[in-house]
Amino acid sequence: MRTRAAVALEAGKPLEIMEVELEGPKAGEVMVEIKATGICHTDEFTLSGADPEGIFPAILGHEGAGVVVEIGEGVTSVKPGDHVIPLYTPECRQCASCLSGKTNMCHAIRATQGQGLMPDGTTRFSMLDGTPIHHYMGCSTFANHTVLPEIALAKVREDAPFDKICYIGCGVTTGIGAVINTAGVEIGSTAAVFGLGGIGLNVIQGLRLAGADMIIGVDLNDEKRTMAEQFGMTHFINPKNVENVVQEIVGMTKTDFDPIGGVDYSFDATGNVQVMRDALECSHRGWGQSIIIGVAPAGAEISTRPFQLVTGRVWKGTAFGGARGRTDVPKIVDWYMDGKIEIDPMITHTMPLEDINKGFDLMNRGESIRSVVLY
Amino acid sequence: MRTRAAVALEAGKPLEIMEVELEGPKAGEVMVEIKATGICHTDEFTLSGADPEGIFPAILGHEGAGVVVEIGEGVTSVKPGDHVIPLYTPECRQCASCLSGKTNMCHAIRATQGQGLMPDGTTRFSMLDGTPIHHYMGCSTFANHTVLPEIALAKVREDAPFDKICYIGCGVTTGIGAVINTAGVEIGSTAAVFGLGGIGLNVIQGLRLAGADMIIGVDLNDEKRTMAEQFGMTHFINPKNVENVVQEIVGMTKTDFDPIGGVDYSFDATGNVQVMRDALECSHRGWGQSIIIGVAPAGAEISTRPFQLVTGRVWKGTAFGGARGRTDVPKIVDWYMDGKIEIDPMITHTMPLEDINKGFDLMNRGESIRSVVLY
Repeated sequence: MRTRAAVALEAGKPLEIMEVELEGPKAGEVMVEIKATGICHTDEFTLSGADPEGIFPAILGHEGAGVVVEIGEGVTSVKPGDHVIPLYTPECRQCASCLSGKTNMCHAIRATQGQGLMPDGTTRFSMLDGTPIHHYMGCSTFANHTVLPEIALAKVREDAPFDKICYIGCGVTTGIGAVINTAGVEIGSTAAVFGLGGIGLNVIQGLRLAGADMIIGVDLNDEKRTMAEQFGMTHFINPKNVENVVQEIVGMTKTDFDPIGGVDYSFDATGNVQVMRDALECSHRGWGQSIIIGVAPAGAEISTRPFQLVTGRVWKGTAFGGARGRTDVPKIVDWYMDGKIEIDPMITHTMPLEDINKGFDLMNRGESIRSVVLY
Repeated sequence: MRTRAAVALEAGKPLEIMEVELEGPKAGEVMVEIKATGICHTDEFTLSGADPEGIFPAILGHEGAGVVVEIGEGVTSVKPGDHVIPLYTPECRQCASCLSGKTNMCHAIRATQGQGLMPDGTTRFSMLDGTPIHHYMGCSTFANHTVLPEIALAKVREDAPFDKICYIGCGVTTGIGAVINTAGVEIGSTAAVFGLGGIGLNVIQGLRLAGADMIIGVDLNDEKRTMAEQFGMTHFINPKNVENVVQEIVGMTKTDFDPIGGVDYSFDATGNVQVMRDALECSHRGWGQSIIIGVAPAGAEISTRPFQLVTGRVWKGTAFGGARGRTDVPKIVDWYMDGKIEIDPMITHTMPLEDINKGFDLMNRGESIRSVVLY
């Protein structure tokens, strides 16, 4: 069949809206009509050419929501009409990673996904002239219709609005999951969040949900403060206004009972390796955990004195918030529908597919939290 | 009173055996007759001048065992005649760190201990001419008699031999505790241990105790292999004999079920920051934990790509094996007496205090695992 898509023809160029060919789902695969998709920094990372593993031409997009239109042979967990969120981190429930109980990083289809292919090593998308178009993160939600492996679909309730829950396909789950799954924040904790963009805001509402007492937000832009407070931030630091952000945070968390200071949990949502170091070093001696969420530039490295770890700090990272997509994403949709978490204020812009490049521009200029394309 | 001690008069010089003055215990303090003390790399680190926080003159030594001879006002947890192990990591059970339940790094007397002083800010040791001599790590076990805070003494059973259990005061607890307390290794785990000196051997026997299936030892010296196998090592790698030690370990741990590979837990017992990186990177994607035990040279930094953490590896460190000294050390003494762990083969040399510098020479030449001074 034919469908409309925004195609990344080459690095550094705007997406091109065009008709593309889409083959139907093979065994174990599902065709989904995408109803809405967010535009994420990771799409930009690849489109810009900064991603050393970027492959072109490709249909980007990995933060979508839609409806199953057709299932391939052997598919049992979803049926046409089901509402689904595509998962760039699948959940096969059969591999050593899924069965470890220790990670969400299913490796069942990792090799082909990384090559922009379906698990059988081919693509479903092609140009009208037959040139194959690569899939992206196994999702390719910048096409009105896409094909995914069954294990890469979370089935969600049908009363949830696509234009909001698409954000659960990446940003919301990453931020909230980092708090709940990766850090395991306890009620009464202190925390610092570096970077108050979309991910940072979701970390903050995750901390609120987890019952943190002190939620310190750090951003170079004072304008981020108001919305971060709406999501639960209790203290704000602009590093431009303090001598040393690490010492500032340590100082804020000292008490008579605890003269050491430092936050129980810190989160980097900037992708800046120096900030990642600060996040580690402002965490509490003895038990502070620092979680890296941001994606660093290719080749960038984190560093610190090993003494920071020997004295009890723990350095971790998170991918998709440690969430098992098929198991956890439907719950997060419920949380949204029940009002436990907020999404609406973060969807600052919507646009038709034709205007998708404007969404990238808004993101690159820092003017949006999330732009969502509505098909 | 007067007692005999090996005094570090200045950095880079051998210890000098001499009579020193020792004041009796003040309130909350205890005088201990040291019966045996191990010589540890940390003593050498300070004596050599490499330790930027080294203070002279001082009485070094932090791995001892002895008998209480006198208690100061208000001391209730030990009495004269009790057998004790001095603790360089005290356990006050009152501070925010002790009460967190998340760390062994009691901070009750941290500031003064770091300055080579008793909690009241003074020293108990002095030269015969009255010059104060600093305490070291709160222990100073290179003196036949020493004074310690009550909270820095683990009371242990009286049938345990001083010349063996002194090693529990540092090396044994550090190695075994890194496995049990810091890593929390589960039965059936895979692990890699970098550096097969005294700490590495204790990590290995900790892994055996924890029921690890695969215990890979890594050392540049083939001669370390035999004893490491006696303590439970199942596989040995000499990095000189393989192209890339990380890839070698990842390859050894791959299975049909788990094509990713990597160890569940890795431990650095070398203090070399490049080895610390290898240890992290050979741990399993998704859940591998790497524990830094070794003390790095001043100013040395660890580094890696943040991708290593974002894909699920956890970087940690351990101090005194995460053990709460007063609570856990007596249990480790029981484990030794019950034959659950071995110490005897690791005590390769014993000597009188007069020969303590020979013990340092043996350690510096890599000819001993542990030398113990018997008073």
